[in-house]
Amino acid sequence: MDAISVIRSKRDGAALTPEQIDWVIDAYTRGEVADEQMSALAMAILLRGMSRAEIARWTAAMIASGERMDFSGLDRPTADKHSTGGVGDKITLPLAPLVAACGAAVPQLSGRGLGHTGGTLDKLESVPGWRARLSNAELLGVLGEVGAVVCAAGDGLAPADRKLYALRDVTGTVESIPLIASSIMSKKIAEGTGSLVLDVKVGSGAFMKTLQDARELASTMVELGTDHGVRTVALLTGMDAPLGRTAGNALEVRESVEVLAGGGPADVRELTLALARDMLDAAGLPDADPARALDDGSAMDRWRRMIAAQGGDPDAPLPTARETQVLAAPASGVLASLDAYAVGVAAWRLGAGRARKEDPVQAAAGVELHAKPGESVRAGEPLLTLHTDTPERFPSAEEALEGAYEIVPAGDGGAAAEVPPIVLDRIA
Amino acid sequence: MDAISVIRSKRDGAALTPEQIDWVIDAYTRGEVADEQMSALAMAILLRGMSRAEIARWTAAMIASGERMDFSGLDRPTADKHSTGGVGDKITLPLAPLVAACGAAVPQLSGRGLGHTGGTLDKLESVPGWRARLSNAELLGVLGEVGAVVCAAGDGLAPADRKLYALRDVTGTVESIPLIASSIMSKKIAEGTGSLVLDVKVGSGAFMKTLQDARELASTMVELGTDHGVRTVALLTGMDAPLGRTAGNALEVRESVEVLAGGGPADVRELTLALARDMLDAAGLPDADPARALDDGSAMDRWRRMIAAQGGDPDAPLPTARETQVLAAPASGVLASLDAYAVGVAAWRLGAGRARKEDPVQAAAGVELHAKPGESVRAGEPLLTLHTDTPERFPSAEEALEGAYEIVPAGDGGAAAEVPPIVLDRIA
Repeated sequence: MDAISVIRSKRDGAALTPEQIDWVIDAYTRGEVADEQMSALAMAILLRGMSRAEIARWTAAMIASGERMDFSGLDRPTADKHSTGGVGDKITLPLAPLVAACGAAVPQLSGRGLGHTGGTLDKLESVPGWRARLSNAELLGVLGEVGAVVCAAGDGLAPADRKLYALRDVTGTVESIPLIASSIMSKKIAEGTGSLVLDVKVGSGAFMKTLQDARELASTMVELGTDHGVRTVALLTGMDAPLGRTAGNALEVRESVEVLAGGGPADVRELTLALARDMLDAAGLPDADPARALDDGSAMDRWRRMIAAQGGDPDAPLPTARETQVLAAPASGVLASLDAYAVGVAAWRLGAGRARKEDPVQAAAGVELHAKPGESVRAGEPLLTLHTDTPERFPSAEEALEGAYEIVPAGDGGAAAEVPPIVLDRIA
Repeated sequence: MDAISVIRSKRDGAALTPEQIDWVIDAYTRGEVADEQMSALAMAILLRGMSRAEIARWTAAMIASGERMDFSGLDRPTADKHSTGGVGDKITLPLAPLVAACGAAVPQLSGRGLGHTGGTLDKLESVPGWRARLSNAELLGVLGEVGAVVCAAGDGLAPADRKLYALRDVTGTVESIPLIASSIMSKKIAEGTGSLVLDVKVGSGAFMKTLQDARELASTMVELGTDHGVRTVALLTGMDAPLGRTAGNALEVRESVEVLAGGGPADVRELTLALARDMLDAAGLPDADPARALDDGSAMDRWRRMIAAQGGDPDAPLPTARETQVLAAPASGVLASLDAYAVGVAAWRLGAGRARKEDPVQAAAGVELHAKPGESVRAGEPLLTLHTDTPERFPSAEEALEGAYEIVPAGDGGAAAEVPPIVLDRIA
């Protein structure tokens, strides 16, 4: 077995054999297959595709490259969620304590943001004192006590995926459904959750631009999870406009706390509840009432315990940006659209995200929306507020937002006021 | 400009812009674009292709990555030849002194063998004392005095190609017509020849397995040469069976000397003369008579001077193998076919070639053919003789030759006796 023959097989359109897949993943993890060989193979996979059988074996080989966690000692069922990433996607923050308050254990091993979508750990790190890195023992301790934990994934889970993910990021081989599906599912299966709900984003601010691609990714992942004994459901959710009214780190924490207090933007609450219902259902708790847990303060209580368990102070004031700049609506009417990708890039340029994985992020930077698609705006009144500690970044953020929204006259804007539902489809 | 955006463009099927091509070649040569990025781009090029305009710019950028040689100070026109590589392809050895004897200057900057096709430098190094490495000044000196020089290409010519060629070799990205054409032509154009004849091999022992692929490669290269002011012609020549009656290093030198003495295998003489005529024609010497130069000893004389100029002794006995093994014909009849690829692999396994570029080769190893396709054989008489210094290699060489030839009864073998011509097509 050698790397060149494996690359050639896929390059020429053949299905890789189980032996080829097992060998190449193991040899790559050990460093015997070089980065330049794996990137050529990744490009061949991106352009030639993989069958369901190949994807299943590829995923299994990545799981086998590291350790597996085991939550079977807990006194309640585990439920996990994964989002493919969107702009303003703070859902993990209210969702994890909410589902814990309803009786499931929620182990959320999360990542950091890269590019225009933010990372859950970056968001939580804007809470003073909170730390992302826990040992496996600490993770199990918090999960057992609080019922929810959000922390960095350890180095022992699917190391082949860790290495391949970093490689794909710099070689233009990210956007492959087989590689995305196997990357997500190898980590989630190695994590050892009993049930999993996938939030697959569709639209301008998401990796998947079309419903068709999103459906294919979702059904691939649901099949992979099911085959490995994880009860898996996927929701396809819209990402043409940002979720909620903020994109940034501390800005999104603040909005999440509003949702936990029973308020917050309607779309964030709606999606949080939809995902919570599916997680509770998959965990065997179909009678739980997550809406009530938001309204009666039990989810908020769980949030405070979760933050405190990792050193955070839930009562400390969140950081605010040194400078803000308001962009006013240029006309009166109805906001017909607001491009999620443009808002994500603007927040990123303001300092909320990073260009390279070793870059720091600004806790307070981001974009605040004063109107959502379907809402009325008036000429000269605030449409967006930009937040940053480094005001020299305002011009490039403004540039990202040029042409990113459309305002139509209120009279003939009947179509514009129709906002699509958040949940577009469900695949189980 | 960044590597990922260039990779994505090609991956998604776009044509690369001139600016993208210039940047990526320069940045790769400088080490700013990493090997794993270039290999992903090479795979995308292999699977997506490049337009003629892209190939032209890619070639120009590789030429611009290094120095260019200049032969305009010589008192006669330069003519060069390039072969895409075949089994038993020793043509450069008789051809260079032959064309020099007819009045042109022949600068043959050659390579070493890798895999199943031998390298011209490896063959000449079996001549005692001969050395491949010359400075640019020595190269010009030999060319001016003798009219022909065969030596290793210096490091200054097309360094981008040198780096990319080594990368493609280990990443399964060799078999791309745009990458093959630009690699060959960037080196040949940087070499500074005024005219160039390309020998594009077609068949089982060649990179190009079909006439259609070979035609595309040939016409791409002819266009590239012409655009850069090099008079370029391509011959498509057959490589289903080995050329001549030997594959190996010293074995092929011996056969080349036979051709220079006016004898030798008919196919080697025929192809040498066909290429010589086109080289002389392209060099503006259409009245030269290469057949006469083989028969009257003037080509042989030039060979002896060429070898001596690089330290070789043309009168020293060539090395012979410590062990030989004869494979007898299993039946009487007509040899209908003898697979070039299998013979190349057998010679390689006997020690004539190398698996990695730092491996040594055996001067005396190789395969000797006692019959060529179309000739009669008798059961029990020698069909092939294997030569090696390491007899433990015989079994794996024999294994390579299993099923590599077909003998048909002489009576109904009318078709078998029809041997296709060496030159299949000519593209100018």
